[in-house]
Amino acid sequence: MRSTIKQGRDIVTLINVFTVEPKNQQRLVDILVEATEKTMRHLPGFISANIHQSLDGACVVNYAQWRRREDFEAMLKQPEALPHMKAATEMATAEPRLYEVVHVDNVEE
Amino acid sequence: MRSTIKQGRDIVTLINVFTVEPKNQQRLVDILVEATEKTMRHLPGFISANIHQSLDGACVVNYAQWRRREDFEAMLKQPEALPHMKAATEMATAEPRLYEVVHVDNVEE
Repeated sequence: MRSTIKQGRDIVTLINVFTVEPKNQQRLVDILVEATEKTMRHLPGFISANIHQSLDGACVVNYAQWRRREDFEAMLKQPEALPHMKAATEMATAEPRLYEVVHVDNVEE
Repeated sequence: MRSTIKQGRDIVTLINVFTVEPKNQQRLVDILVEATEKTMRHLPGFISANIHQSLDGACVVNYAQWRRREDFEAMLKQPEALPHMKAATEMATAEPRLYEVVHVDNVEE
């Protein structure tokens, strides 16, 4: 399983930075993986979720791709998404923001 | 040009979140693109840089991939990297952090 970052794709990118106590980092990862598998991936417009844990233990990032901004906003109102979001924000502060890819440089391709 | 997010690759991911005044967002993007093209891509261990601008104008994220943590750390000490980093941090606050990919889910593949 892989995700692709590419300029000019007609999608939106959510980068959600969670700040967490290191002792809770693994649990937060588990919550985000479960939220992705059980709920998010089944919603309209979902393309990908890519969960990252920081080497220093202090953060978790979800780098997610949605077809349209409206799909992401509709997800926020889905009743089945709420318990996952509540569980995550109870143990971490979340800073979600939508982005557009403006430049990609890769020496391997 | 494209980059790939994949679990289990033996690389490190730098996610650097820049907070910027919206009027300076485009200039910051230009600085980061120039830094990538002129300097970063030529350094040992560089795999990719992927520049994102937030739709609300408040942030720029560089999602970058390096072969090893030591390559990233060596870059920080490169004299030719310093002017770029100085220009970026003069107009924005940077929060760089190293990550590992722990989960990828993509409905398109």
